[in-house]
Amino acid sequence: MRYEKMTPFRVMDLVRQAQNYEDTIHFEVGQPDLLPPPGVKKALLEAVESDRYAYTESMGLFELRRKIAAHYRHDYGVEVDPACILITPGTSNAFLVAYLLTLEEGGVLGLADPSYPCYPNFAAMVDVQPRFFPVDRSNGYLLRAEDLAGSRLDAVHISSPSNPTGTLYDAETLRDLATYCEGEGVALISDELYHGLVYGKRAHTALEFSQEAIVINGFSKYFCMPGLRIGWMIVPERLIRPAEIIAQNLFISAPTLSQYAALEAFDYDYLAQVRETFKKRRDWLHEALDPLLPVDAHPDGAFYLWCDASAYTEDSDAFSRELLEAIHIAVTPGVDFGKYGTQTKLRFAYTRSIEHMAEGVERLRRYLLK
Amino acid sequence: MRYEKMTPFRVMDLVRQAQNYEDTIHFEVGQPDLLPPPGVKKALLEAVESDRYAYTESMGLFELRRKIAAHYRHDYGVEVDPACILITPGTSNAFLVAYLLTLEEGGVLGLADPSYPCYPNFAAMVDVQPRFFPVDRSNGYLLRAEDLAGSRLDAVHISSPSNPTGTLYDAETLRDLATYCEGEGVALISDELYHGLVYGKRAHTALEFSQEAIVINGFSKYFCMPGLRIGWMIVPERLIRPAEIIAQNLFISAPTLSQYAALEAFDYDYLAQVRETFKKRRDWLHEALDPLLPVDAHPDGAFYLWCDASAYTEDSDAFSRELLEAIHIAVTPGVDFGKYGTQTKLRFAYTRSIEHMAEGVERLRRYLLK
Repeated sequence: MRYEKMTPFRVMDLVRQAQNYEDTIHFEVGQPDLLPPPGVKKALLEAVESDRYAYTESMGLFELRRKIAAHYRHDYGVEVDPACILITPGTSNAFLVAYLLTLEEGGVLGLADPSYPCYPNFAAMVDVQPRFFPVDRSNGYLLRAEDLAGSRLDAVHISSPSNPTGTLYDAETLRDLATYCEGEGVALISDELYHGLVYGKRAHTALEFSQEAIVINGFSKYFCMPGLRIGWMIVPERLIRPAEIIAQNLFISAPTLSQYAALEAFDYDYLAQVRETFKKRRDWLHEALDPLLPVDAHPDGAFYLWCDASAYTEDSDAFSRELLEAIHIAVTPGVDFGKYGTQTKLRFAYTRSIEHMAEGVERLRRYLLK
Repeated sequence: MRYEKMTPFRVMDLVRQAQNYEDTIHFEVGQPDLLPPPGVKKALLEAVESDRYAYTESMGLFELRRKIAAHYRHDYGVEVDPACILITPGTSNAFLVAYLLTLEEGGVLGLADPSYPCYPNFAAMVDVQPRFFPVDRSNGYLLRAEDLAGSRLDAVHISSPSNPTGTLYDAETLRDLATYCEGEGVALISDELYHGLVYGKRAHTALEFSQEAIVINGFSKYFCMPGLRIGWMIVPERLIRPAEIIAQNLFISAPTLSQYAALEAFDYDYLAQVRETFKKRRDWLHEALDPLLPVDAHPDGAFYLWCDASAYTEDSDAFSRELLEAIHIAVTPGVDFGKYGTQTKLRFAYTRSIEHMAEGVERLRRYLLK
């Protein structure tokens, strides 16, 4: 069956095992530990008090789509027609919508290796062939237009900043890629879920460079609302109707309370504090971890460090389990994100306090330098 | 592209047009107008106050899975292992999980015609071939084991009570079907979303007759929580791990607040009032409508009447539009549910008060008998 082509997240087994230890240090968690903007809680309470339990229309509350459009003006100076915005139950369903919009069965999807494992798993669901392009330190962990030249691709799916590496597409690389895709008729799917969590640089949306790009984003990371399961996607005008038909079937509408909550999520003062908190953690963990497990990719954003453990292992899965069992450190093995160079890599998330991480780094120091 | 094989819900265009009229009578709405059990609101408020914004594990809160298992003991006397229960964001995503669990690309899925249009649309998404079996008054609008004999099917998907007809599988028909499927190695997917909304008869779950059945249900209808987007599915033990892997990718976890809310949904005293309200409406609308547009399927459950409009039309889509424009009556055209006999059928939902429906029936009487 096709689910046999889908890879489980090995880290989830670790997460389960970690529950056996009271003193686990969590470097594996891919969600923020901070609260959403305070207006979100207020909006949720009001929505419950007002008994908002009905479906919304499938494209989502128009007022929310309008606010998201305003967000693109605010953050990027880009005009987006609210009609092109589809509210989705998290970004996960949005990936599937994007694939159904752009890829036939048997179609070919270009992906970086390593990248977020859901991408090839969604490809397996809908009978799409992934074509992996290795990325590493030498090319800045970015998929570039010149890498794609000559490949027969129907779509390319990138993430910036990237999970697992935290690397960000600079304007020039993203423009070149978008221009290449538009010229070749390759659909560009840009996962921008970690936008906002970018430190000392400016994130660019693919929409700055191509009106044909499909952009996916959501409220789970920067906006600290993962459990509310709400995201959005922006599609070219000609794909609005097909996207709506897919949405009607796939999820009817995104959770209603979450849509009302998201109306209050664009609190830029609060969000600046969220960013600052993660920046401090990144700076701290980068400095503390680098001497032990050198950070291999420039961590411009998201909340991950991609570390080289080649001094200790050639089996990142076994090494993760070893660290959990020996010193109760939970960290995601590189192999969860692909095959290229991932056996010697670990992904560290900085989604907990510096004190929590400090205890973890101290345990690692004692264990690795023993 | 494969989305071109997916049919839009024609009624959605009607819903949009209906917003132009202040005095539309709504017979098209597929969601209850009643509030969820009062404990649901309290649980939601508490969950928000407690800042429950994180993901849960992909299978869902174990406590909720335990309560759902208890519901199967309470309503059917059937033992279900909570480990076999997956919490889903509504039943829509659950259908997709079920297809991915049971059907290869190119596999064949047996469906009744008419039936819920999402089924063939999900089939189109994942390159599965629908094989339609016509159902009508002569066979009670039920798909029976003898209809399937000799068909090369990989899975069969039924709903009981059915959307759009409201017909219920009696124990014998369901047992025969389940036994046939188990014997032939055909996966039986049983959509039981309208269980609870069954009047004067007892609903049977496919699990009473086969441990191999995949059962899908949710909180959107009987429990009156559609916008909370939460459902569940029950899979045979050997499919737990594949279901979990698909869930991790497809939706990560169901909305967290909705899961806490659902913990308080099994308030059987309140739910009996919900059932009684819909039963009264069914009885009223059945009697009022039958002389005008004869009810063609025995409406044992759900909140729909499947009516014969052959005295007036052979184009149910055009006739729905005519009724909306002429007398501001919104009703779902039969063609939204298939091809067999659907050009002369309309689906009336009794999801509004008897007063509201009475005004609609009066307008219909004046218009049709003019």
